[in-house]
Amino acid sequence: MAKVATKPKGAKKEAAAGAKAKKPEVGLKPAPQADTEAMALKLERGDLSRAMAAYLALCDEKLGFVPNVLAAYAHDSAKLEAFAGLYNDLMLAPSGLSKLEREMIAVVVSSINHCYYCLTVHGAAVRALSGDPVLGELMVMNYRAARLEPRHRAMLDFAAKLTTDPDKIVEEDREALRKAGFGERDIWDIGATASFYNMSNRMASAVDMRPNPQYHGQAR
Amino acid sequence: MAKVATKPKGAKKEAAAGAKAKKPEVGLKPAPQADTEAMALKLERGDLSRAMAAYLALCDEKLGFVPNVLAAYAHDSAKLEAFAGLYNDLMLAPSGLSKLEREMIAVVVSSINHCYYCLTVHGAAVRALSGDPVLGELMVMNYRAARLEPRHRAMLDFAAKLTTDPDKIVEEDREALRKAGFGERDIWDIGATASFYNMSNRMASAVDMRPNPQYHGQAR
Amino acid sequence: MAKVATKPKGAKKEAAAGAKAKKPEVGLKPAPQADTEAMALKLERGDLSRAMAAYLALCDEKLGFVPNVLAAYAHDSAKLEAFAGLYNDLMLAPSGLSKLEREMIAVVVSSINHCYYCLTVHGAAVRALSGDPVLGELMVMNYRAARLEPRHRAMLDFAAKLTTDPDKIVEEDREALRKAGFGERDIWDIGATASFYNMSNRMASAVDMRPNPQYHGQAR
Amino acid sequence: MAKVATKPKGAKKEAAAGAKAKKPEVGLKPAPQADTEAMALKLERGDLSRAMAAYLALCDEKLGFVPNVLAAYAHDSAKLEAFAGLYNDLMLAPSGLSKLEREMIAVVVSSINHCYYCLTVHGAAVRALSGDPVLGELMVMNYRAARLEPRHRAMLDFAAKLTTDPDKIVEEDREALRKAGFGERDIWDIGATASFYNMSNRMASAVDMRPNPQYHGQAR
Amino acid sequence: MAKVATKPKGAKKEAAAGAKAKKPEVGLKPAPQADTEAMALKLERGDLSRAMAAYLALCDEKLGFVPNVLAAYAHDSAKLEAFAGLYNDLMLAPSGLSKLEREMIAVVVSSINHCYYCLTVHGAAVRALSGDPVLGELMVMNYRAARLEPRHRAMLDFAAKLTTDPDKIVEEDREALRKAGFGERDIWDIGATASFYNMSNRMASAVDMRPNPQYHGQAR
Amino acid sequence: MAKVATKPKGAKKEAAAGAKAKKPEVGLKPAPQADTEAMALKLERGDLSRAMAAYLALCDEKLGFVPNVLAAYAHDSAKLEAFAGLYNDLMLAPSGLSKLEREMIAVVVSSINHCYYCLTVHGAAVRALSGDPVLGELMVMNYRAARLEPRHRAMLDFAAKLTTDPDKIVEEDREALRKAGFGERDIWDIGATASFYNMSNRMASAVDMRPNPQYHGQAR
Repeated sequence: MAKVATKPKGAKKEAAAGAKAKKPEVGLKPAPQADTEAMALKLERGDLSRAMAAYLALCDEKLGFVPNVLAAYAHDSAKLEAFAGLYNDLMLAPSGLSKLEREMIAVVVSSINHCYYCLTVHGAAVRALSGDPVLGELMVMNYRAARLEPRHRAMLDFAAKLTTDPDKIVEEDREALRKAGFGERDIWDIGATASFYNMSNRMASAVDMRPNPQYHGQAR
Repeated sequence: MAKVATKPKGAKKEAAAGAKAKKPEVGLKPAPQADTEAMALKLERGDLSRAMAAYLALCDEKLGFVPNVLAAYAHDSAKLEAFAGLYNDLMLAPSGLSKLEREMIAVVVSSINHCYYCLTVHGAAVRALSGDPVLGELMVMNYRAARLEPRHRAMLDFAAKLTTDPDKIVEEDREALRKAGFGERDIWDIGATASFYNMSNRMASAVDMRPNPQYHGQAR
Repeated sequence: MAKVATKPKGAKKEAAAGAKAKKPEVGLKPAPQADTEAMALKLERGDLSRAMAAYLALCDEKLGFVPNVLAAYAHDSAKLEAFAGLYNDLMLAPSGLSKLEREMIAVVVSSINHCYYCLTVHGAAVRALSGDPVLGELMVMNYRAARLEPRHRAMLDFAAKLTTDPDKIVEEDREALRKAGFGERDIWDIGATASFYNMSNRMASAVDMRPNPQYHGQAR
Repeated sequence: MAKVATKPKGAKKEAAAGAKAKKPEVGLKPAPQADTEAMALKLERGDLSRAMAAYLALCDEKLGFVPNVLAAYAHDSAKLEAFAGLYNDLMLAPSGLSKLEREMIAVVVSSINHCYYCLTVHGAAVRALSGDPVLGELMVMNYRAARLEPRHRAMLDFAAKLTTDPDKIVEEDREALRKAGFGERDIWDIGATASFYNMSNRMASAVDMRPNPQYHGQAR
Repeated sequence: MAKVATKPKGAKKEAAAGAKAKKPEVGLKPAPQADTEAMALKLERGDLSRAMAAYLALCDEKLGFVPNVLAAYAHDSAKLEAFAGLYNDLMLAPSGLSKLEREMIAVVVSSINHCYYCLTVHGAAVRALSGDPVLGELMVMNYRAARLEPRHRAMLDFAAKLTTDPDKIVEEDREALRKAGFGERDIWDIGATASFYNMSNRMASAVDMRPNPQYHGQAR
Repeated sequence: MAKVATKPKGAKKEAAAGAKAKKPEVGLKPAPQADTEAMALKLERGDLSRAMAAYLALCDEKLGFVPNVLAAYAHDSAKLEAFAGLYNDLMLAPSGLSKLEREMIAVVVSSINHCYYCLTVHGAAVRALSGDPVLGELMVMNYRAARLEPRHRAMLDFAAKLTTDPDKIVEEDREALRKAGFGERDIWDIGATASFYNMSNRMASAVDMRPNPQYHGQAR
């Protein structure tokens, strides 16, 4: 908020009172949070299959870096391949949901789970795909504060309930999606995307995955 | 509990009082819960790749049925392949965790999330792999009531916290696993297994996946 | 799920990667969970009244064992008598709710509270009274996944809310039961049954009550 | 707090601003909350056994009224007898816990469950038995704010955890009670009292039980 | 409840069983809870401005004591003035909400947060302003058990949701207030009052603020 | 994450399957989220006191805009003055906590409460005061993922517990702050800051306060 004092007329008195505080303002400043490690576990890069080595090289070429989630999985070529296979199908395959919509789901789930890695990476994706940095912030902070069409509200409400109360999803919840215009395959995709980030959020948390610093400033 | 009345001496009185209840005992009996559909979404089987068609055929041959989770994913060959790839690496690949331990994690996560599909299927797996039906029930009902060695208690406590409070996992939690004898790769595997079932539980819930009835009676 | 590998063509590579895991698959197998003690507290059997001694003998004769909840209470004859008196009235007295319905409430409450003792004992009762083992599993795992008539859904929704949010029960909740066809006395009985298991679940947890092993395999 | 305005020098301005509020201060005053019905269910008094009729008469003679919980149960003599039997054993039988301690547990459990009936009745009992009205208020409002000896803190911490997280009670929790000086039978009694009020709170909520107005002013 | 035993005929037996309890009834009685300190922090009274010194003197004259919340803030004159300024505007300025309604909100918020200080002080205010001690108890214990007009129910439901789920307040919640007859400025005041006590409850908790003992018996 | 497909060899098949999805990618793009209103309530600017008019003018001059929280409060001059008085004392007065530390507390509390307004405004302040945009993001997303000194970890842990469980703060929590080097007055300031944002978060939510768009890009 405004760093502008109202200067109430009791100000001199206040300053005097403040003067009695023996300690000067000494609060430590946290050290820079630049991350250098992909995760907290000490696992060396595994012997990658040719396909996986090429995949990481391609990322590096296109993005200028290897995303840390891939670097983390790269301790085991088979695990990297399995993860990338599922991820790419989910986020890149044809779907009734746009790529932006899938990223919005990713961020809303990650916001509930307070996942630093996924909020950073997919928040950047929402900003980039929508061209609206404010939309990205809203998904990170509280999607209920966003101005959304009924379609998106229904989609994100389903994702949020699936995240916090998976055992309480009933047919009425699927019906609400159908009423908002989603088809059977769309419902699958909404469910699959929200479910996937409930996995990824926890994997990031389990091993303390750290986002590459490049994401923070993207598409601001 | 005992269906044996204590027959307190006031019993005749009680019977008389009971007689005044005008309604006979008429509570409906629920219809049989035998499931015939793999899930609630109306999605037809897709055009399966040769590998996936062979995979389902092999399941049918070995198990006598196609697990409904695979039948549900089979509306899209690429999605089936991606899911099966991740699942098989997770549960069948070499690991410092035994297959039973991975199944125990699966069931404990599913118990917290009250996932009917996964509790049924993986509860059966715990019974089968351990040869101890009571262990299966304990994982389904409340792992804290089981008599466990510190290794298993630490493993399951981590999986439970990762499920309910992923944002509160800190280095001390990983340290607790190390103290219980787990290595870096084991921590990865514990985290990956618990994370995976947080996805699967939600996918099952999103589409109302129903377990094949064969699982219920297995290894009792 | 299917214990059938997809055998992706990268399998040899994966096996090689797996070979690098230095630890063989050594996960401990938990010791058998056969329980021998009724509970964790060290309290010897009390001096039972004639009526209570006869009650336990009758249980043993009819069931082949004394249920451990009774064995636990038997450290004090008056407490055993008071508990049995309330229990028998609740579960066996005439009521607009069938015995099966009362057992369904018992299990749903116990599922929310994750009570190992009550889930085991009353899960068996639901299987036996309904003749449908799957119904028993559904009540243990997640009643919202069961195919239920509106009467049973309303009854169990009330029991679940009373368990998790007793302070939020308002007249609208009782009205929902009336609309589902329940009378005033039925509402009392639904409330009383759900309340009783909120007590029993906690008593079982407070003293670590263990179910007799006979229940696990009953009516599968 | 102080209903004394600071009268800041801007007060006239404020009054002027206030004057613009078109509505006068019209908030409705709630109607008097004097309760006349024992509960919301319409159930007439049943045909009481001689013992139960005498019990209610004795209450009326000694207390000047029949407690509404008994009036509510009196629609069915057998249910009244079963409830009273358990209640009286729990709260009046010999125990290592004083009557005051049992009432403190009752109120702490009821505070967590926000039970109007039990907080009113047992709050009065704590005030009366302790002779300290402030202790009664503390148990109703937040026992953690009270100045308590380790014995009582341990006792109430156990009761609180058993109320909110019954599935997380483990041997360490019972050990904490032993370290605070409680014996095996005392642990039973703490568990039984906390469990009983988790039942009573819910029963009161299920049927909207209302305390007799006499309790409110007792022992203030 | 009734401290009247049912004297079941097994009473002698019970007494005998009781006799075996080796420990006499020895439960400690908690020490009197009379508070002498305003809070747990050791902060001396600051050098008060003339206005603040006069304010405290006026409180003392009118109430017979200085409310402990003011005594606690008095370690710093500027903080005391800022707090009193906000408090007095909120609770005493003209508003579409009556003073009683603002106090009802204060107590309902404090009940959810279990704030000993605010429940004591503002519970007394509800009793005094309404002339109905039972209303005060209902707000402290569970406002949902009170017999309220739709206006008050809507007002308190909004305050309760704002307290427990501030991130889930959406336009529909404001609309519910408008339908209950509240205007835009009234909605501001409901929100501001509920928000303020979410601050005060936490401040009281952070420093363990203790209410002056005079409040407990007021307006009973 | 990487928007780079792995191009598994089954890709052609997958594309074919995708082709069957009848719907093109049609997900709506949300409308731009640029906010033009300070809040959802329709309240016109009040008749401001000279001091308050000057305060808003000064903000506009120094910041280039009037922060929307002040614009929202400006419907009533006295309320604006009271709010600004408390805010300015809290965030700008001398304290043992640096301004950055107070802003860190503001953001951590707002992260738990998912407050769009405060996360935006105070997230920008953390970035600006620390010169470390990543630190700002960590406070918004999950402070537990930040690399912090024990002083800051203890400070934020206290603020977080005060936010989620104010009724569970006990002397041990204050002791933990003392062990981390904080004095009595520092504890007051930590508590006061965390409490204030629990108010502000709810006020922002109650009236749907919207941050000025300028904050989003600041200090990135």
